Amino acid sequence: MSLEYSQSLARNSRAASSELAPIASGRKNAWLQRVASLLRTNSSLIVTANEKDMDAAAAAGLSSAMLDRLKLTSDRIETLAKAVQHIISLPDPVGEVIEGQRRPNGLFVSRVRVPLGVVFFIYESRPNVTIDAAALCVKSGNAVILRGGSEAIHSNRALQQVIQEALESEGLPKNAVQLVDSIDRSIVGELLSMGSLIDVTIPRGGRSLIERVTREATMPVIKHFDGICHVYVDAASDEKMAVDITVNSKCHRPGVCNAAETLLIHRAAVPHLLPRLAAELQSHGVELRCCPASLAMISGGKPVTDEDYGTEHMDLIMSVRIVDNIEQAIEHIRRFGSSHTDAIVTDCVSAAMKFEAEVDSAAVMINASTRFNDGGELGMGAEIGISTDRFHARGPCGMRELTSYKFVVRGVGQIRS
Amino acid sequence: MSLEYSQSLARNSRAASSELAPIASGRKNAWLQRVASLLRTNSSLIVTANEKDMDAAAAAGLSSAMLDRLKLTSDRIETLAKAVQHIISLPDPVGEVIEGQRRPNGLFVSRVRVPLGVVFFIYESRPNVTIDAAALCVKSGNAVILRGGSEAIHSNRALQQVIQEALESEGLPKNAVQLVDSIDRSIVGELLSMGSLIDVTIPRGGRSLIERVTREATMPVIKHFDGICHVYVDAASDEKMAVDITVNSKCHRPGVCNAAETLLIHRAAVPHLLPRLAAELQSHGVELRCCPASLAMISGGKPVTDEDYGTEHMDLIMSVRIVDNIEQAIEHIRRFGSSHTDAIVTDCVSAAMKFEAEVDSAAVMINASTRFNDGGELGMGAEIGISTDRFHARGPCGMRELTSYKFVVRGVGQIRS
Repeated sequence: MSLEYSQSLARNSRAASSELAPIASGRKNAWLQRVASLLRTNSSLIVTANEKDMDAAAAAGLSSAMLDRLKLTSDRIETLAKAVQHIISLPDPVGEVIEGQRRPNGLFVSRVRVPLGVVFFIYESRPNVTIDAAALCVKSGNAVILRGGSEAIHSNRALQQVIQEALESEGLPKNAVQLVDSIDRSIVGELLSMGSLIDVTIPRGGRSLIERVTREATMPVIKHFDGICHVYVDAASDEKMAVDITVNSKCHRPGVCNAAETLLIHRAAVPHLLPRLAAELQSHGVELRCCPASLAMISGGKPVTDEDYGTEHMDLIMSVRIVDNIEQAIEHIRRFGSSHTDAIVTDCVSAAMKFEAEVDSAAVMINASTRFNDGGELGMGAEIGISTDRFHARGPCGMRELTSYKFVVRGVGQIRS
Repeated sequence: MSLEYSQSLARNSRAASSELAPIASGRKNAWLQRVASLLRTNSSLIVTANEKDMDAAAAAGLSSAMLDRLKLTSDRIETLAKAVQHIISLPDPVGEVIEGQRRPNGLFVSRVRVPLGVVFFIYESRPNVTIDAAALCVKSGNAVILRGGSEAIHSNRALQQVIQEALESEGLPKNAVQLVDSIDRSIVGELLSMGSLIDVTIPRGGRSLIERVTREATMPVIKHFDGICHVYVDAASDEKMAVDITVNSKCHRPGVCNAAETLLIHRAAVPHLLPRLAAELQSHGVELRCCPASLAMISGGKPVTDEDYGTEHMDLIMSVRIVDNIEQAIEHIRRFGSSHTDAIVTDCVSAAMKFEAEVDSAAVMINASTRFNDGGELGMGAEIGISTDRFHARGPCGMRELTSYKFVVRGVGQIRS
């Protein structure tokens, strides 16, 4: 029963993606504008649907953080409508000529961006993501199958009605956006087996979900694993900068992937800087877990373990290690880091160049907070996820990362000899 | 026993890739030059090793085509040395700034190309590929594990000695190139399980090998499946061009993936063009398998089946179908094609634009032979394979397709608020 449903979802998406791919951005933007308008005019209906989800989630004992992510208000719906309108202003990646040249035989060869095709997107119980993901996928010419968290099912149904009404009124294929309208978990496994119909799966959520998806998927997966991020304070640096960047990287939003987990500090900077850094971090409520040399200097510090160095705490906890030189800092990052985001604070040009060349992370920050590894901050406009892979997409995934390319070759009858 | 060996291969490669990544192209080019010189000075040793393989292969009854691919002569070694020197002239993809911008807060954000890391390359018994692959991987900053066909083991050992001597004398990490020096097939399975150490597997060879690799691999795979390619002759076209392109696409090298399998012809072009096309193809020895309408016109034609339309014959066999319009041609290509290479021959600008937009193939040819879908012809210099995937790499894979990227963010102390 569910297999038939899964197959129809995947086949419908495949067909819709062929129709959607050649549609120019004017029509896709008109659809986005319509979605924004309908969100506004249907705001109270959506809030009512969301209240059903909120009541059930409260009764089920969800945490206040989870409830907050689930909640939609008229203000939040207005913010969502504005986010959709922002996507109108972003360039359509489809049709972009990535490069082109004329060959010695006169052929014009170009590499042109095309949609990936069909995206299967699995995400948390955050109904705003339903709209974001639909907007990013359709604007980049992809059909999408949305599988939101089960707690958001009523909200997602209401949002999907808005999406559908807009698709219909703008004449876009109605299966460009499909919602898995069931909380039956076997559907996920079935869709993951349909690698010939679905081009990529993007799972967002806990580690166990991502691991399951990676194991079962028969198509490529854009994965988002841990962010074990470092701030390395070099021998010579601006003191205020070192403090600001360390505190911002750790404390601005400790529960996100680009928050720093470990402070590495060059021993030459320790005497004048470590006491100040420790005091600032502690005044922000950070628990410091210290290497033996730093433990002796920091009152209230606890001894650090290798396990700490390799853990994404997602909390106000920071490991501290004094290093002899930049090489030791880089070695530490290689051993314990997750190649997500790593920062150096330095006044020394050659140290900055060395760090940039040898630290193999999705984002390397020179005198800037780790918190800037984010699609919006890096100038991608909006992101559908952050990849911890190296293949295809690395770091924040915007619309361009939802595309492939094809070669277009124009001739006047050339043949190969 | 073999597991230990596989693990040491993968770990050695991982370590070598970290050392190799920051090395600038001057040193990599010096290594390529040394490989070319050593190939020349060791030519007779290599030929002697190759003779062992040739004798064993002849005794085992390999086909003459296989024997020809296995054979090395001093002339072929000279060609190989020249190919290595050609790679010196290609730009190093590592360090290329793909794009960059200054953000409103003053941060400089750039996307910089980096190597993928460790490549596991599985290929046919073609010893020249050993050198090509090593050259392309090392120049693009990747460590590579080479697993050539077992028939070429003595040749590959001799070539690996050249590679090793050059790595040593130029001070590059000796494990940048490792040869699986065993024909034990369990090693392949073990390496495929090591997704945390190996970044990509590239299998070349028969369909069953690629399917096995895809099934077992725990890392991304760049796959190379069928090429079911089409030539569509539109209502209005230059007659000579239509004949030249069709004949070249089918007959130039019928056993390769970018050879055409099916001729689609607009019914308006049939009266003046189909008899001439059929005669030219038949004069080149092509067996024509025809739709009912064309069968009536072509003497010596046989009836075509749907199975023919979906088969990569790799031989002088061509299916012929008369279509009512371009839409029917595109529909045929979508249904039976493999999204590899498809060509239109037309004088009509809007038909060319429609074909380009709606045919979703790795290479779309407008008035040019399908045979041009090849790394060298498309201007990539040299290729390690041709991808039939859409993810990461599509079509010919040159050095750039062996890279990922990282974001480099430079600031003056910016923090996120």
